[in-house]
Amino acid sequence: MDAISVIRTKRDRGRLSDEQIDWVIDAYTRGAVADEQMSALAMAVLLNGMDRAEIARWTAAMIASGERMDFSGLTRPTADKHSTGGVGDKITLPLAPLVAACGAAVPQLSGRGLGHTGGTLDKLESVPGWRASLAGDEMLSVLDEVGAVICAAGDGLAPADKKLYALRDVTGTVESIPLIASSIMSKKIAEGTGSLVLDVKVGSGAFMKSLADARELAATMVGLGTDHGVRTVALLTDMSVPLGLTAGNALEVRESVEVLAGGGPADVVELTLALAREMLAAAGLPDADPARALADGSAMDVWRRMIRAQGGDPDAPLPVARETHVVTAPSSGVLASLDAYAVGVAAWRLGAGRARKEDPVQAGAGITLHAKPGDEVTAGRPLLTLHTDTPEKFAYAEEALAGAFTVSPAGTDVARTPLILDRIA
Amino acid sequence: MDAISVIRTKRDRGRLSDEQIDWVIDAYTRGAVADEQMSALAMAVLLNGMDRAEIARWTAAMIASGERMDFSGLTRPTADKHSTGGVGDKITLPLAPLVAACGAAVPQLSGRGLGHTGGTLDKLESVPGWRASLAGDEMLSVLDEVGAVICAAGDGLAPADKKLYALRDVTGTVESIPLIASSIMSKKIAEGTGSLVLDVKVGSGAFMKSLADARELAATMVGLGTDHGVRTVALLTDMSVPLGLTAGNALEVRESVEVLAGGGPADVVELTLALAREMLAAAGLPDADPARALADGSAMDVWRRMIRAQGGDPDAPLPVARETHVVTAPSSGVLASLDAYAVGVAAWRLGAGRARKEDPVQAGAGITLHAKPGDEVTAGRPLLTLHTDTPEKFAYAEEALAGAFTVSPAGTDVARTPLILDRIA
Repeated sequence: MDAISVIRTKRDRGRLSDEQIDWVIDAYTRGAVADEQMSALAMAVLLNGMDRAEIARWTAAMIASGERMDFSGLTRPTADKHSTGGVGDKITLPLAPLVAACGAAVPQLSGRGLGHTGGTLDKLESVPGWRASLAGDEMLSVLDEVGAVICAAGDGLAPADKKLYALRDVTGTVESIPLIASSIMSKKIAEGTGSLVLDVKVGSGAFMKSLADARELAATMVGLGTDHGVRTVALLTDMSVPLGLTAGNALEVRESVEVLAGGGPADVVELTLALAREMLAAAGLPDADPARALADGSAMDVWRRMIRAQGGDPDAPLPVARETHVVTAPSSGVLASLDAYAVGVAAWRLGAGRARKEDPVQAGAGITLHAKPGDEVTAGRPLLTLHTDTPEKFAYAEEALAGAFTVSPAGTDVARTPLILDRIA
Repeated sequence: MDAISVIRTKRDRGRLSDEQIDWVIDAYTRGAVADEQMSALAMAVLLNGMDRAEIARWTAAMIASGERMDFSGLTRPTADKHSTGGVGDKITLPLAPLVAACGAAVPQLSGRGLGHTGGTLDKLESVPGWRASLAGDEMLSVLDEVGAVICAAGDGLAPADKKLYALRDVTGTVESIPLIASSIMSKKIAEGTGSLVLDVKVGSGAFMKSLADARELAATMVGLGTDHGVRTVALLTDMSVPLGLTAGNALEVRESVEVLAGGGPADVVELTLALAREMLAAAGLPDADPARALADGSAMDVWRRMIRAQGGDPDAPLPVARETHVVTAPSSGVLASLDAYAVGVAAWRLGAGRARKEDPVQAGAGITLHAKPGDEVTAGRPLLTLHTDTPEKFAYAEEALAGAFTVSPAGTDVARTPLILDRIA
């Protein structure tokens, strides 16, 4: 078995055998297959595809490259959620404590943001004192005692994926449904959850721009989860406009706390409840009532305990950016569109995101929306507020927002895209 | 400009702009584009192609990555030959002195063998004392005084190609007509020859297995040469059976000397004369008579001076392998087929070739053929003689020869493939 023959098989539109897949993933993890060989193979996979059996084996080989967590000692059923990433997508923050308040255990191993979508750990790190890194037994004890834990994935889970993901990021080989699906699912399956709900985002601010691609990705991932004994469901949700009214780190924590307090923007509440219901049903708790857990404060209670268990102070004031700048409506009427991607890029440029893995993020940076599509706006009144510690970035952020919103004459009927577009199980 | 956007352009079936090509070749040569990025781009080029203008720019960028030689100070016109490689292809050895004897200057910068086809330098190094490496001015003075020089290409010519060629070799991205054509032609154009004859091999022992692919490669290279002011002609020649009666290093030198002495196998003589006539015509010497230069000893005279000028002794006995083993004909009749690829692999396994760049080759190793397709053979009489210093390799070589030849009943009419299949100018 050698790397060149594996690459040639896929290059020439062949099927990779189980032995070829097992060998190449293991050899790459050990360093016996070089980065330049794996990137050539990744490009061949991107252009020539993999069938369902190949994707399943590829995923299994990545899981086998590292350790698997085991939650069988917990008394509660486990439920996890994964979002493919969007602008203003803070749903994990209210969702994990909410689902825990309803009786499931929620082990939420999360990542940091790269590019225009934020990372859950970056957001939570704006809470004073909060730590993302937990040892394996510490993670289990928070999960056991609080019911929910959000922390960084350890290096031991699917190390092949970790290495391949970093490689794909610099070689133009990210946009492959087989590689995306196997990357996400190898981590989630290695993590050991019993059930999984996938939030597959569709639209300008998402990775998948078309509903057809999102459907294919969702179906692939649901199939992989099911094959590995994880009860898996996917919701396809709209990401053509930002979720909620904030994009940024501390800004999104604040909005999440509002949702846990029974308030918050309607779309964030709707999606949080929809995902909570799916998670609870998949975990075998179909009768739980998440709306009530938001209303009666029990979800907020889990949130506070979860933050404290990881060193955070839920009562400490959240960081605020040093400077703000208001973008006003150019005319009066109805906000007809507000592009998620442009808002994400602008928030990123203001300091909420990072260009390279080693860059820091600004806790207070980001964007507050004062209107969403369909809302009335008045010429000269605030439409967006930009937040940053580095005001020289305002012009750079405004450049990203050029053409990002349109205002139609008052009375125009603006069709609102439904938030939940499809469900795949 | 960044590597990922260049990779994405080709991945998504776009045209690379002149600026993208210039940038990526220069940045790769400097190390600013990483091997894993270039291999992903090479795979995208292999699968999605490049149009004629892209190939031309890619070639120009590789030429611009290094120095160009200048033969304008010579009194004779320059003519060069390049073969895409085949089994038993020793043609450069008699051809260079022959064309020099007819009045052209032949600067033959050659390579070493990798895989089942031998390398011209490996063959000549079996001549006691002969040196492949010459300094630039030493090379020019041999060319000026002798009329022909065969030596290793310096590191300064098309360094981008050197780096990319080594990368393609380990990443399954060799078999791309745009990349093969630009690799060959960047070196040849940088070398500064005024005219060039390409011997594009077709068949089992060649890189191009089909006539259609060989034609496309030849037309691409002829176009590139012409665009750069080099008078370029290609012959498509058969490589389904080995050329001549030997495959190996010293074995092929001996056969070449036979040709220069006015003898040698008919196919080697035919191809040597055909290529010589093309080179002389392209160099503006259409009235020269290469058959006469073989017959009157003037080509042999240039050979001897050329070998001496590089430290070799043309009168020294050539190395002989320590052991030989005879493969006999399994039945009597007519040899119907003898597969070039199998013979090449067997010679390589016997020690004539190398698996890795740093491996040594055996000067005496290789194979002698006692019959070619169409010849009569007798059961139990020698068909092939295997030569090696490492007799434990005989079994390994014979394994490669399994099914490599067939014998038909006596009187069967075996159609011989013509040696020269097409000419592209």
